[in-house]
Parts: sequence; C-alpha cells; structure tokens
Amino acid sequence: MFEQKFFGGRESAVASYCRSFPAVFERSQGAEIWDEGGRRYLDFLSGAGALNYGHNNADLKEALLGYIAGDGPAMSLDLRTSAKAAFIRVFSENILQPRNLDYSIQFTGPTGANAVEAALKLARKATGRQTVATFTNGFHGMSLGALSVTGNSHHRGGAGTFLSGAARLPFEGYLGDGFDTLAYFEKLLTDPSSGFDCPAAVILECVQGEGGLNVASNDWLQRLQSICRAHGILIIVDDIQAGCGRTGTFFSFEESGIFPDIVTLSKSLSGYGLPFSIVLMRPEIDCWTPGEHNGTFRGNNHAFVTATAAIELFWKSDDFSLAVQALAARVTEHLDAISAAHPSMVLCRKGRGMMQGIACRSPEDAAQITRFAYEDGLIIERAGPQDEVIKVFAPLTISESLLDEGMGILSGAFDRCAKMKACGAA
Amino acid sequence: MFEQKFFGGRESAVASYCRSFPAVFERSQGAEIWDEGGRRYLDFLSGAGALNYGHNNADLKEALLGYIAGDGPAMSLDLRTSAKAAFIRVFSENILQPRNLDYSIQFTGPTGANAVEAALKLARKATGRQTVATFTNGFHGMSLGALSVTGNSHHRGGAGTFLSGAARLPFEGYLGDGFDTLAYFEKLLTDPSSGFDCPAAVILECVQGEGGLNVASNDWLQRLQSICRAHGILIIVDDIQAGCGRTGTFFSFEESGIFPDIVTLSKSLSGYGLPFSIVLMRPEIDCWTPGEHNGTFRGNNHAFVTATAAIELFWKSDDFSLAVQALAARVTEHLDAISAAHPSMVLCRKGRGMMQGIACRSPEDAAQITRFAYEDGLIIERAGPQDEVIKVFAPLTISESLLDEGMGILSGAFDRCAKMKACGAA
Amino acid sequence: MFEQKFFGGRESAVASYCRSFPAVFERSQGAEIWDEGGRRYLDFLSGAGALNYGHNNADLKEALLGYIAGDGPAMSLDLRTSAKAAFIRVFSENILQPRNLDYSIQFTGPTGANAVEAALKLARKATGRQTVATFTNGFHGMSLGALSVTGNSHHRGGAGTFLSGAARLPFEGYLGDGFDTLAYFEKLLTDPSSGFDCPAAVILECVQGEGGLNVASNDWLQRLQSICRAHGILIIVDDIQAGCGRTGTFFSFEESGIFPDIVTLSKSLSGYGLPFSIVLMRPEIDCWTPGEHNGTFRGNNHAFVTATAAIELFWKSDDFSLAVQALAARVTEHLDAISAAHPSMVLCRKGRGMMQGIACRSPEDAAQITRFAYEDGLIIERAGPQDEVIKVFAPLTISESLLDEGMGILSGAFDRCAKMKACGAA
Amino acid sequence: MFEQKFFGGRESAVASYCRSFPAVFERSQGAEIWDEGGRRYLDFLSGAGALNYGHNNADLKEALLGYIAGDGPAMSLDLRTSAKAAFIRVFSENILQPRNLDYSIQFTGPTGANAVEAALKLARKATGRQTVATFTNGFHGMSLGALSVTGNSHHRGGAGTFLSGAARLPFEGYLGDGFDTLAYFEKLLTDPSSGFDCPAAVILECVQGEGGLNVASNDWLQRLQSICRAHGILIIVDDIQAGCGRTGTFFSFEESGIFPDIVTLSKSLSGYGLPFSIVLMRPEIDCWTPGEHNGTFRGNNHAFVTATAAIELFWKSDDFSLAVQALAARVTEHLDAISAAHPSMVLCRKGRGMMQGIACRSPEDAAQITRFAYEDGLIIERAGPQDEVIKVFAPLTISESLLDEGMGILSGAFDRCAKMKACGAA
Repeated sequence: MFEQKFFGGRESAVASYCRSFPAVFERSQGAEIWDEGGRRYLDFLSGAGALNYGHNNADLKEALLGYIAGDGPAMSLDLRTSAKAAFIRVFSENILQPRNLDYSIQFTGPTGANAVEAALKLARKATGRQTVATFTNGFHGMSLGALSVTGNSHHRGGAGTFLSGAARLPFEGYLGDGFDTLAYFEKLLTDPSSGFDCPAAVILECVQGEGGLNVASNDWLQRLQSICRAHGILIIVDDIQAGCGRTGTFFSFEESGIFPDIVTLSKSLSGYGLPFSIVLMRPEIDCWTPGEHNGTFRGNNHAFVTATAAIELFWKSDDFSLAVQALAARVTEHLDAISAAHPSMVLCRKGRGMMQGIACRSPEDAAQITRFAYEDGLIIERAGPQDEVIKVFAPLTISESLLDEGMGILSGAFDRCAKMKACGAA
Repeated sequence: MFEQKFFGGRESAVASYCRSFPAVFERSQGAEIWDEGGRRYLDFLSGAGALNYGHNNADLKEALLGYIAGDGPAMSLDLRTSAKAAFIRVFSENILQPRNLDYSIQFTGPTGANAVEAALKLARKATGRQTVATFTNGFHGMSLGALSVTGNSHHRGGAGTFLSGAARLPFEGYLGDGFDTLAYFEKLLTDPSSGFDCPAAVILECVQGEGGLNVASNDWLQRLQSICRAHGILIIVDDIQAGCGRTGTFFSFEESGIFPDIVTLSKSLSGYGLPFSIVLMRPEIDCWTPGEHNGTFRGNNHAFVTATAAIELFWKSDDFSLAVQALAARVTEHLDAISAAHPSMVLCRKGRGMMQGIACRSPEDAAQITRFAYEDGLIIERAGPQDEVIKVFAPLTISESLLDEGMGILSGAFDRCAKMKACGAA
Repeated sequence: MFEQKFFGGRESAVASYCRSFPAVFERSQGAEIWDEGGRRYLDFLSGAGALNYGHNNADLKEALLGYIAGDGPAMSLDLRTSAKAAFIRVFSENILQPRNLDYSIQFTGPTGANAVEAALKLARKATGRQTVATFTNGFHGMSLGALSVTGNSHHRGGAGTFLSGAARLPFEGYLGDGFDTLAYFEKLLTDPSSGFDCPAAVILECVQGEGGLNVASNDWLQRLQSICRAHGILIIVDDIQAGCGRTGTFFSFEESGIFPDIVTLSKSLSGYGLPFSIVLMRPEIDCWTPGEHNGTFRGNNHAFVTATAAIELFWKSDDFSLAVQALAARVTEHLDAISAAHPSMVLCRKGRGMMQGIACRSPEDAAQITRFAYEDGLIIERAGPQDEVIKVFAPLTISESLLDEGMGILSGAFDRCAKMKACGAA
Repeated sequence: MFEQKFFGGRESAVASYCRSFPAVFERSQGAEIWDEGGRRYLDFLSGAGALNYGHNNADLKEALLGYIAGDGPAMSLDLRTSAKAAFIRVFSENILQPRNLDYSIQFTGPTGANAVEAALKLARKATGRQTVATFTNGFHGMSLGALSVTGNSHHRGGAGTFLSGAARLPFEGYLGDGFDTLAYFEKLLTDPSSGFDCPAAVILECVQGEGGLNVASNDWLQRLQSICRAHGILIIVDDIQAGCGRTGTFFSFEESGIFPDIVTLSKSLSGYGLPFSIVLMRPEIDCWTPGEHNGTFRGNNHAFVTATAAIELFWKSDDFSLAVQALAARVTEHLDAISAAHPSMVLCRKGRGMMQGIACRSPEDAAQITRFAYEDGLIIERAGPQDEVIKVFAPLTISESLLDEGMGILSGAFDRCAKMKACGAA
C-alpha cells in the first residue's frame, strides 16, 4: 500500500525535490549545475535559500580546501577552535556591530529546525510561559517543537500526534485590508476572557518563504513589536530563509527598525551550503545553563571557515547589499513583464528583494510552468498554501546575463502553458 | 542574574564542553589534537562518538579534497547527486546486504536529533498510536520530540514546557537482579487497567552512552523484541552513538540477532565528523508521503563522499571489526587494572567494545580525575546520571601505543586523586 | 501567604459568591430568599441559571416529597428506574418531538462540566480529530477538558498546567462590524497552510452567559452551521446556561433554525436546582461503547422527578414560552430606562430574553452598583471579561411586581452610584 | 454501525449497568430494592459505594423531608446557608477533630470526578509542577484530568485524544513479592536521568475499588509518605469509593497513620445517594484564589442536610465503625467458605473491610456467576482489569440475616457455575 522505494531502490518514499528534478547532478558552479550526462541547468532554487552566494564560490572553496589540507579539526563538539574564534570575531565586527545589534550567539545543531527548537525553549524558559504564538502560513521546521509552530497541514500530518504549545495568529493581510490582524492580536491579549494565553514569544518570518512570499510591512512589524513589548512577549525572527542577504540586507528585519529578542540563522550562513545554524539572543535573556541544550554537530568547523570567508567577502561594506538590491529590481521588472503578458494566469507578483515570485491563479498552471521550465534547463520551485506561487530564488551573486537567461526560460514556460491552455480550450 | 557571555564575550552561556577543556584547538590527526600554542592532547572523547575513525583520516580527506576541488555540489537538498548514489550503493552492498538487513533509507536533516524526530514521527504514523516508550537513562536529543524520550532532567528542564508523548520504562538492570524489567513491561501491556497505553514504538540504545554505559544483554534484547512483536510495537534502535563500529560491530544490535524496525544513525556515519544522519526502516512501514518530513541539509554531499570512503576503507571485510574487538579487550585490561588498584574509588567497569569506562563511587572523584587527566594532556569525559562514569571513547583506529599512553595518563590521574584524598583525610 | 480560611474557619479560600453576598440563607420561595435573621432578598441571580422556575416551586416540591416519602430510589447509577423512564418519555414527547429534534440522550454525571467533557470526548471519538474549536469569552466549566475550551484567564490559571486541545475563534462581533469572524474561520479551514487543524467540533453558547451576554445572531449561527457541515465539523451547543427557557424558548438555538449535532443541558434541567445534566446527540454519532463514559451520579432520581414535573408544568404548550418573552420585553424596558438615565455610566444593554444586562463603562461602577443593590435586598451578579456587565437573571416565573421591585432597586443603585461619583468628582 | 438506541429507544449506547440488571426499579429500602413488577432484589452493589448506609435511611429521609417541606434552599451555588453551616460544623466536630486532621474544605461540583479535578489542579498550582503520579489499576473519573490518571484502557479510549500529565507507577504487589514497587519509585526520583519528572503529587486509592480490590498495606503507605515528604510531593488520597466507612473506618487511610495532603470524598458522603463531593486539603496548600475553581452545584443543600444527619447518626462514636468491622469479618468468612468450596474457580479473596470480593481464575466464570446471582435476586458487580473480581459491596448497615441471604445466593451461583462447567466438560 505504500509507495515503491525510490532512488536506487533504497530511498524512502519521503524523498521530494528529486521527484520534480530527477536528474543526477554531478558538478556545480555559481548559478549553474550539471548532471551526470553533462547537461547544464540554471539553478533558481539555490538550495531553498542555502546557496545565496551560488555553488562552490571560489574564495570560499579556497579557504575550505586550505583548512582541510592543513588538518584543521573538522568537528569539535562545542570545543573552542581557531576557526570558531575567527567566525565569532568576523561575525561580530561585520554583522552585529555595524547594525548596533548586541546579541549573544548560541551554536546549536546545524539545522534550521534545531535553531528554532533552541529559540522556542529559550523563550519559554526566559518568560516562564508555555505558549508560543505563530502565524498563518509560517514555516519553521520538522522536529516536534518547530512543527508545532509551522502552518503546513501536510507537514503537520506527518507528526502522527497532536501538536500542542502554539497559538495561531493571522499574518499581515491574511483576510485583506478589512481585517486588522494586529488589532485582533491586541484584543486577544487585553481581553482576560479571550482564552488566548499570553505567549512566551511570537515567532515569525518577515517574508514568509515556504508560505508563499508573504511580506510583512515595516509598519506592521513596528506595531507588532510595540504590542509584544507591552505584554512582555519576546519576538523571535526566524531568518533562516529570508536572512543572509536574501531580502537585500543581511537580516530581513533591518529596514523595519525592529530589534528582535531572538533571531535564528541557518541555510546560507555557511555560504557554501554546509550545515550551520546559530541563535542570536539579547544577552539579558541568555538564561541557559551550561550544556542545557547541546548536540554533536554544534562545532562544524568547515562551516565556520566558509562562513568567515563569506562574511569577509560580501559583508565588509554595503557594496554587496546594494548590488543585490539592484538585481532584485531587475527580477521585479522581469516578473512584472511576465505578469503583464499573462493577466489571466497571474494573480500578482509577490515577495521582496531576491525572494520574489508570481502567484498563479491556478496551482495546476504553476506546476505545469515549472515542469516546462525544467525541460528547458531551469530549476525553479513553488511555494504557498496550494503551491501556487512560482518562487524565483536565484543566487544573489548571479550575473545579469544568467539571470536574464533564466527569466527568459521562465517567460517561455508561461507562454507555452498559455498556448497549451488555449489549445485545450479550443 | 544570568551568566556572563562566554568565548570572545559573545557566546551564549549554554556552551559546555569548552568549560572542561578550555584550550583553543587548531589542528588534529587521528587520536591527537593540538591547541593554538602547539600543545598536544590525546583525544579520548572523539567528538562524543562522531570521530570513530579519528581526526582527518587521510583516505577520507583525500576523497573530500578531490570532490571539493572538482566542484562537486556541496549541498543538494534531496536532489539526486552522484555522491548520494555512490553512498547508497556502497552502504547497501557493504553494510545492509551482508547483514541481511532489508531497510529503506531516509535522509533526514544531518543531526541525530533530526533522525530521532523522523523515527518517532514515522512510528506514530505507521501505527496510529501516540505514545512512544523509552527507557530510564536514555538519551536521544534536544528537539522537543527527541527530548521527550530523553531521561536527563537537566536537559528536560531546558524545554520550558511540559514534555508529553513518552512513557518511561526501566532499562535492563535498573533495580538490580531482583527486578525483571521486561516482566514489568509485559504486565503493563497485558493488564488493560495498567494505564500504560500501548505504544507506537520503544526507542532504545543497546548501550546507553550518555546514560552511563549501561549495556542491554542479548537475551534482554531478544525478549524485548518478542514482547514488541506480540503487541505490534515497533523497535527503534537509536544507534547514533553506539553504531558505526563503536561496540565492535557496525550496528550495536548485531550480536543480539534482533531486527529493529527502525534504526537511526548519525555521529560517525560520515566518518569525518561532518553532519550526517539517516533513518533506516523496514520497507513495509515506509508510509511517508513525498516531502512529509523535509529539511534543507538532507543533501550534505561532503558527508556522502567521506561516508562512502569510510565504508570502503573499513567495512568491506571483517578485518576492522576484529581489530576493534581486539582493541576493546586491551581497553578492558587497562580498566580492570585501574579498578583493581583503586577499589575504594571504583564501583565497577562498565560498557561494551570501545565504549567502556569506569563508574566511580563518587562523582566528585570522577570530575577530579578527568581534570587531572586534562592537565596531563588527555581529553576524556564523563557520563551517567551523576556524571560518575569516566568514559573511554578513543578512536577505533587508535594505535596500541597511543591507547596505552592515554590509559597511562588516566591511571596516573586515578593515582593522583587517590593520593589527594589520602592527604585530605590525614 | 495564602488567604485565611473562610466560612466557619474551615472553608477553602476558593469560595466566591459568598464573598459578595455574605448572608447565611435559610429559606427560599420563588424569587425570594430569606437569611437566618429573617431578612428578605430578591434573587436576580437564580443559581446562575439553575433556578429558572424560581426556588422550591410548589408543584415540583410536591412531586419530590411524594417520591421521597414513597421510598423511590434516590440514586441508581445508570440502572433503569420508573422515574428515569418517566423523564425520558416526558422529555421526548414535550421537548424533542415538537421541535423535530431526533436526539439520543446520554445521562452524564450531573454537572455541566461533566456534560461538556462527555460532549468533547464524543466529538473527538466520532470524528477521529483531536482539536475542538471554541470561542472568545466562551465558558464551559472547570474540569481539564471543559477548562481547555473556556476563555477566562482566571479560571485557566487554576489548572496549574498547560491546557491543550482547543483552538480559539473570535465570537460574533468580537472586533466590531469590520471583522467578519466567520470569513476568518472559513479562511483558516480552507487554507492548507493556516496551521489551524480541522477540528472535531466547535463548541459555543448562543448567548454567552459568563462571557458577558454576547448574542450570536441567527444569521451567524446559520453561516456557522454551513461552514461546519462543509468540513465535517460537529456543532456542540452548550445550552447549560442559556437553555431551559432562559432565552424565551426551551433551547437557545430554536429561533436560528440550526440543528446542533450535540447539545449539553444542565443547571435548570431538574427545575429545582438539583444536580442533573444530559448530553443530546444525533443518533448517527452515538459511537459510545457501553460504560465508556460512566460516573456514579448519572442516576439522580430526585432530579428526574422534578425535571419531569417541570416539563409537564411549563412545556406542554407554548404558553410559558410566550409569557417569558413578554417578561423579557419588560426587562428590556427597564434596562433601557436605566441606560437612558445614565449614559455616562452605561455602555449598552446586552443579551437576549431573560438573560439581559447592562454593560457599564467602568467595571468599578458595576461592582459598586451590585454592592448597593445587595444592601437594598437584591442579589445580582456581574459577568463579562472585566465583570463589567450587570446581569439580570431573574426567575422566568417571577411576577411582574417582584420584577419591577427588583428593577427599582437596581435603578436606585445606579442613581446612588452616579451620585457618589458626582460627589467624588466635586 | 453504532449500537441501537437504548432505554425507551432514546438512551445513548453508553448506558452500562442497566445492561447487566435490566429491571426497572421503583422502590428501595436499606439493602432491598423492588422493580416495577414488585420483584425484590438484594443490593450488593450499593450504588458502587454511594449507598453505604443503604437506600432511603429513615432518619436521613426524615431530615430531608423536613428541609424540603420547610422551603430550605435546594441549591445555593456557594452562598452560605444554614444547611451548609451545619454540615461544616458537624463534619469538623465528628470527623476531622477526633482524628486530628486539620483540613480546609473545598466544596466542588458534586461528582467524584470534579473533586479529583480540583485536587489535581490544586496540587499542580501549589507545587508549580505539572506531572501527577498515579498507580496501575487506579480509577479516578471520566473528565479529562481525572481520566488521565485513570488506568482503565476502555475508559481511556473514550477520550478520543492523547491523555497527558500523568506518570504511571506500579501499585503495591503489582508484580508479586519480588518487585519492590516503592524502591522503584524512589530510584526514579533520585536518578536525575530517569526521565521521571518529579511530580506535583501522587494520587491513589488505599483500596482500589474498580481496579480489583487491591489493598495497600499500612507499611507501604507509610513508606510512600516518607518518599513523598522527602521530595515535596503531595499525597492525594482519593477516598471516593473507599471512604465514608467502607473499609471499617471513616477514611481508608486511618489505620495506616498517614496524613494525606489532599483527600477527595464523594459517593456516600451525602449518605442518601445525593450528588455531593468535597476536597479536604491541608490549610498550608490552600492557594486557591476566590472562584478560581467554581461550578453551579457546589451548594447542593439537600445533600448537606442528609450528610449532616448521617454523620450525627453514624459517626458520633466508634460504635458504627466497630459494627462494620464485625460485619466485614462475617463477609470474610462467607468468602473464605466459597473459596474453599471452589478452589478450581477461585484465585483468592481480595479487599478489606466491607469492600471484599473473590478473584475468579476466569473472567467468564465471574460474569456467569453474577448473572446467575441476578437471576436469583442479587445485584452484584465485578471489578478488576478483566472484570474477574466479584465485588461484595453490601450496605454497611445491612442486617446479618440479609447479608447471609445474599451470600447464600452468591454461593449458590458459584455452585451452579461449577455444575455447568462440569457438565460442559463431560
């Protein structure tokens, strides 16, 4: 009754991306990736945000090769290493200090889910409250705590048990302009009979990646922060997908001016696609006792090395940030052009910075278009509740010509889908 | 009121191992590791079991350098890559097939906790039951699901919330010979008023690493399997620490002859200390739908490369296994000698294979002894409910001379502690 | 640090109503009650809705005295008795059949909370879903299941543990006209990434008693029923306070035309203030196995006897219902007059039928007014999130003159409060 | 697919006792009860312990008739009444003071489950801990909190959801003499890696009624108290079934000399089968705030009246207690005689005081025997995990001749069953 075994007859039926993109990949560079047969693809998936600097960046690669060749410790639990010291210094000097962010750093297990789990535990421990408020269409991971604050019902169903501890709130714009989502939140908090227990924290993505590129406005984030401050509720920004430059600044919340109590980072943090996560927390809430949240792979030194190199390469000045913003404007233009050409298929353009996309009116269209794109050598995925949003996740370092090439393929896939529908209707 | 910031003034108070071993490490090879000042240490911690083949094994290093230099994709979500294909093939041919283990492989996020989370979800989903039975002194990870089946109260307290979904059972020997722990389990299952809801699964370590090197006998495991089979309860062997050769065979349960329904592997799986985990499951219970349990770092190709190289290097024949068993006998001899020399300090030798240790009568002694050992250049840790068990976790590839050297340091630390106590008593 | 012992130096600090109304009561008749000193009070509290037919109604009293004198069994677990048979017959013929309500009857433990617990369990069991949706300001009882669906934070705090299993929805009008609460509910249900797990049931009061006399409109109830039917969600109407004629019809939902899947009744069901509860359920969802939900006091025959007498006395025709509606109109007039006289103190009149009241702008005013009323011989309580709603809960059988007398006292208390505030302001 | 509607075509399929004893009862006196056809039965069920003083005791009846006739308030929420004052005084003077028990009294909703819910909440609130430890075969009620600490899987299954918050411990003798259940409990508490979170309280019955008449010895209770005191764990004795004289003393724990922190009473508390429960608590842990745990039927004055009369009638001296103990010895003799006559059918006699019974080797025999007994006019029920224990629950006030008569019927039923089996075997 269950599905057949997968890759090589051995892989569990849980495998997913490889169903859409069944090629066997062998080599990759920047925005390009080649399969075993030598066929080239453009990568607009970027490891779901884990390859913001593209595949195998030369500077990072050189740093990593040198470290390995020199027998630098590969793993170190949470022992101190030179590589870790360098990362802490470079991250502090180039990321935290210029933004006036006074954070302590926790090295958690190297997955986003693990960082989220640590953040949730810390928030509960620091406040003594048990509920964490989370938002419609939020996505935070697969382990039991992270899953409880995740909206997706397909993933929630995988738990095989009741998920507790989360209270759900509507994200900005959830029911259109008529529904002031934060007024609702505030009412729930101030009404002692609302049944909404004051939460330890809210956890949110400033731009919801998997949830469909929904953007929280700066105003909304500011109001959210005011409400939370008034009730002693911590703000956890899950910047695992939207952080590390994806929106045009290092953190997704920079423009809004809010100062989250806790921030989770992962995915592109290592710069090279290596597993690495951290939790940033205001020092006042760092109430951990030693080893209270531990884990084997907190000391992935290879990731420290490439992360350090990436920060030095991209974040010592504003230049990279400005370049990403310019590139994002080019993405916007492309998407607007496609939207204008296919008003019957396109609902709207969505997202911010280099995490933009097109919401199709029909999820089937979106699926068809990404299939066509793949046939033409473009790897691109979908997001949103119905997988109706085609999500352009090109590397931030992509050249204009490769970006245009990929956009051309995408545009062609829209055309082909439109033609197919016209035929079908005839 | 909270602790001061740690390493570099930035690290969270949660840091732990680095408190016992404050050196800053820079280079490592096999069983040796050097700090920034050039001082050499022997490593009897081995990344808490993640470095069974020692630091930076030359063959694995070569394979990894080649892969990186050739621009092999570093991360691939769960896309198919040549590196993944090779791992699946080599793992099947050399690990599964010779042991007649027909398992499907799930690539989870690369931490042990993530593998445990996936295993728990799968067991619940496959059986439709919600409770998972777990054992006293079991250790399975820090995320909410994994933590709920973990015994350690220090870690449990970090959750900041009530941990549900687990039912606790006594491990073999929990109250000495008079208490037949499995008779108790069976009574709970067959008594319809016991209040013990029939669980989806039991999760256990055949040798409890963090819990104090408690060993389940083959008989006990066989009886446990019979009971579980009779009640449709799945058996999850968490082989994250005891697997990958640590007990002398690849899996810790081989000698017992049981066939677990689900097995989790991590730590030494990559062979190089890189984050990597898999869940093995009998194909009949692989009821996952595509993507139901996903995660960014399921495709850590660097780890695939070193894992493949490690299997080819160590597990193509029985030679390595036999060598590890011989080495383990040498560890036993050393520990028996120490025990015989210090009957007033030593309760007993514990553990199996290359995960043996000495249970001290006093946790303070154990702490003092490992501090003395560190002063003499030996990194060695403690385990057990009171951290009373000194845990010898040397690489499986250590030379006899380095093993003897390390054991000499440990023996000296016992002597020094004994002398100190004699003086103190005088 | 805890409060002094209460009544007679022995009662727990949990005692509540007796703090507002400290007299020791000795005798009661209809809407009147006398304390040990012979002082007479009008009762506009009516046992919080448990005395809809007033104290010690003569016909019911006669039936009860006869039953007791004749050695009718007082308690019978759920054995069959003549008294139970009579109740089932009379309730079916006079309540269910004329309203075309085909319900099975479950005799639960005799408290409202127990009926709610049974309803929640049944809904979960019948649907296989675990969450129950509940509304802001809903009140359903103190046991763990009932409390989880109750909104009041004071009561929730008493649990001493995390309350799970409920999902909170905004009641009609929760944020004013701009917020379409059912559109929000429907969005949560149809969005597969909302994080709102499709519930087993919604539980609601058509008029929220403790929550502040909030009224669900017929349209809203009809729409709610449509949404629930579309998603296989059961509707539980908790008619414990609003049922048994309190709104002018036997059930509070009659006017709306909805057909709940489950209805809980208690409080005035016995007609005499004796503990008695039932759960009504559509026969198709009666999936209980024998004894699966049991309890000692399911067979309170004294309550069967008075309940049977009450139905025969009041519900054989429409006359009583019409009389209650006329009386309710008189209450409305009184409250409108008070409101008109004190616009600066009164926010609005609220409620429906004989469960109406006045929402004060200031909770302190409301408290002061009820204190003044008590001094003048009127027992009247408050409701609402801030206890800001003065709640007129006169017996449905009260004479016009006693109603007017009580309303006069209430009106006087408003005047006195107004005067006091004027002085205070001067 | 569900069962047909029951009594009168209207009663839910959940009905239970009436399936074993389908007569329709009409009149009852002492230990006798008559059906509508005038047939007489002996009642060895006694309302599952709610009729310790038999049906319709004359003195209690007179007090109740007088109260009703004089228009004493029937229900009073938790307002003070003369009837409540009398109960508090009489209970304090005759029950608490002579036993040196300094308890505050909480008037909860009138069911045992409600008292248990209040006790669990109080224990959690007073200690700040979330788990409550409970015992195999314990039975505490059907609402979600009470059910979570109940062992019976049939009832637990009715929840339709996961039951959390309880930790299960083995009751005395659970695995025979070889298993020291309290040594196990103590090990779990003192081992910081046991995974057993230190509970707020243990809840237990000194004689488990529904669980099969399992008796906790005085020694075991004393040791349990020592362990609990050492860890700040509260002791809740659920004396709902075993209290009010059933074991020969008012409380079941008197002989053991323990002083529980919390005691729940219900069932026979009113003396007349009327719904009534209280929670007794040491004043130091009475941390309730006013109204934090409330409920409509906390003021069941009819029950106050009969409870007061019962205490005055039976508990002013030791006479009643001594008489019950003598009667219990007679029950023991009868049961021993039956056991001696049927060694192949009887496993052992169980229980204490007037809650004794016979454990049959086969549950089918037990069912057959109670059916035969009913045919001969004796109402008697079964208990235990498999319903294998025939439970003699005669009124404490039964005459020797009626006791002998009932025992004669039971003995005859054993004979008949033995004969039937002999024939079947032939």
